[in-house]
Amino acid sequence: MDAERVLRDLRELAQLTGGPDGARRLCWTEEWAKARELLRSRLDELPVEVTIDAAANLWADLPGEGEGHVIVGSHVDSVPAGGWLDGALGAFSAVEALRAHAGSKPPVGLRLVDWADEEGARFGRSLFGSSACAGTLDLDEVRDLRDRDGERLEDVVARFDVSLDRVGESSERLRGTCAYVELHIEQGPVLEGRGEPAAAVLGTFGVERHVAVFTGQASHAGATPMGQRRDSFAACAQAALAIRDVGLRHDPGVCTVGGATSEPGVVTAVAGRTEMLLDQRHLDPDALAAMLGEAREACQAAAADHGCTVELRHVWRIPPIPFDDRLIAFARAAVAESGGQDSAIPSGPLHDAAEMARLVPTVMVFSSSSPPVSHTKEEDTPEADLRVAIEAYGRTVDATLAAAGSGELPPIADPVGRG
Amino acid sequence: MDAERVLRDLRELAQLTGGPDGARRLCWTEEWAKARELLRSRLDELPVEVTIDAAANLWADLPGEGEGHVIVGSHVDSVPAGGWLDGALGAFSAVEALRAHAGSKPPVGLRLVDWADEEGARFGRSLFGSSACAGTLDLDEVRDLRDRDGERLEDVVARFDVSLDRVGESSERLRGTCAYVELHIEQGPVLEGRGEPAAAVLGTFGVERHVAVFTGQASHAGATPMGQRRDSFAACAQAALAIRDVGLRHDPGVCTVGGATSEPGVVTAVAGRTEMLLDQRHLDPDALAAMLGEAREACQAAAADHGCTVELRHVWRIPPIPFDDRLIAFARAAVAESGGQDSAIPSGPLHDAAEMARLVPTVMVFSSSSPPVSHTKEEDTPEADLRVAIEAYGRTVDATLAAAGSGELPPIADPVGRG
Repeated sequence: MDAERVLRDLRELAQLTGGPDGARRLCWTEEWAKARELLRSRLDELPVEVTIDAAANLWADLPGEGEGHVIVGSHVDSVPAGGWLDGALGAFSAVEALRAHAGSKPPVGLRLVDWADEEGARFGRSLFGSSACAGTLDLDEVRDLRDRDGERLEDVVARFDVSLDRVGESSERLRGTCAYVELHIEQGPVLEGRGEPAAAVLGTFGVERHVAVFTGQASHAGATPMGQRRDSFAACAQAALAIRDVGLRHDPGVCTVGGATSEPGVVTAVAGRTEMLLDQRHLDPDALAAMLGEAREACQAAAADHGCTVELRHVWRIPPIPFDDRLIAFARAAVAESGGQDSAIPSGPLHDAAEMARLVPTVMVFSSSSPPVSHTKEEDTPEADLRVAIEAYGRTVDATLAAAGSGELPPIADPVGRG
Repeated sequence: MDAERVLRDLRELAQLTGGPDGARRLCWTEEWAKARELLRSRLDELPVEVTIDAAANLWADLPGEGEGHVIVGSHVDSVPAGGWLDGALGAFSAVEALRAHAGSKPPVGLRLVDWADEEGARFGRSLFGSSACAGTLDLDEVRDLRDRDGERLEDVVARFDVSLDRVGESSERLRGTCAYVELHIEQGPVLEGRGEPAAAVLGTFGVERHVAVFTGQASHAGATPMGQRRDSFAACAQAALAIRDVGLRHDPGVCTVGGATSEPGVVTAVAGRTEMLLDQRHLDPDALAAMLGEAREACQAAAADHGCTVELRHVWRIPPIPFDDRLIAFARAAVAESGGQDSAIPSGPLHDAAEMARLVPTVMVFSSSSPPVSHTKEEDTPEADLRVAIEAYGRTVDATLAAAGSGELPPIADPVGRG
């Protein structure tokens, strides 16, 4: 692996789709398509076949000696005004893994994937492409999701040649998969706090995602005495603070209220209706269930205190998903050999790897984040740490290919089990 | 006054610009222009001259016997999804006052006004037309106000032939004014609670309007431990609840947080920046100042508790404005003669009458609101109460015209004092 080539590609991508406000690679937009064009131009230099599947995932196949293949990849889409490394680091490091093996046939095939709409930033549904591929995307749950402008998910993806009813065909790409390996930035403060450049990843936090809809009564801001209000924003505010306490009680679990939208939403009226975005995560399934129950109670208590009602609308959930012990061992060793320490941490953020881990042996490598923020233009990682992480990732891929070639990670004929 | 003719006009307006979601007469839109066309068609049946001034206010002049004129009017614009009576009741009752006096010359002139953009729902600045006319509109404060789509106020009003730098010319219309009389629905629960159909109005609450901008740090919802967050939405929520307590402490004052907008505002990120809309009102100027001071402290404490900073941006203020004692006496008597009680209440909502009361003797008459909500499609008033209110308004106008004719309310040569 030549880390310099990866860094060069990433800088070019940042120039193409970044700027003073951060990365602009929101899925299902022109700029996302531009990012993919750059990825594709790099793949066109290699002896690989590039295709797009029914869920808009991009694939590139490098044939190997033996049967089956190892999948490497990540996503080039970003949140609006996001960071330059989130997703892109893994996608372009996967290109470099193909480059590194393009000269001589690897023990088994090496298959790159760039997953579509990992972030879910536009419709609130993460992991669109990887969950379609893994067979866990509930079409009826996503079909009518709308973005801020009221556009339906089904209509928007159709502009990118995706027919929602056919996205399950993407699963074909998993036939014969031996393992899945992904590199990503940590997006948090743990490695920076420990002074570690990179680490193996143990698995991903489970996530419960809801919209809490508080309904009160819109009324005139000047004419309605405080004691006679049914203020949905006040109910939302009280619930948000109580839910923050739920997260604090269940450390290292986290609860996030990302924002709220009120109607009529003007300064001259008490808010009659407020929708609150709620995201909860934990590595332990029982703790996650307890957190959701406590959040529900907090919403109901807050609504009652302000003469409102509340409905908690389920948006999406995923259980905590542990990665493969053999691959975790490869990744720990690879990090240590590349200049880091023999260490492994859980992932708070969700990743496409979580969808793959349900079906095939999976592991991730994290680079540090410094400053330890994510989904923002300030996202960054010291170059020295990136080099360690990219090398560790390459070594993990090599060890995985070798294990697959020697039969330790046999190809799975039909991971999704559709026969 | 023929209350039936007013009710007929109001029902026609509701059919034209209303519907299942409420009134759609947001200022500076096509539908607002439609509402004005209806008003104009009614005025075209009368021997009046109709003109539009430099601030987009519509005027209709019925000449009188003596020198000077009494102004009657209100506004036909509404908040988005508003009620059928707010503003429209006063505008079409003013038309009826012209009709009632069109047959024989009144003692002094009778001048109707339909003020532009009373609600300020689009740019957060109420009383655009009446404050321009009263000479209290600070152009530099409003020029760059933007609506949700990022459009500037100056550009939007230009589409309605309003050049912001010339709106002060509207003041010419006040030369020779004897008094201003406005009918409006209460928009609150006080009269309904007392079982009164209508009442005279003592004056309007003072208003302090701000946007509180909380700045924290956007970070990944899954990767940022609770204890390391700088969550601007949590700071906003804490401030909103504390500000609600400020309102409760200063009853009958009111404090309203109408909503909040967060960035990035997605479920996958801690909100790095949150803007909160804040409106505070009281009849007593000292209490209003105390409420603002306490709100500022609440915002600062909440910001500090969540590792954020806060800036309170002044949007607009108006002091408490008492109405004219002589006219209040006319209105009290008129309500009692029309089937109501001899009663007067303050106004929590703001009105164009507040701008006029700075300059000329002014009074308002309120009809009850039942249900006692406003700025919503559920806004309504029992027909029997509307009839009492319209008759009381007509009697108040008659008494005011008579007093003006007898020299008790002499015309003011230059109310705005621009020489």
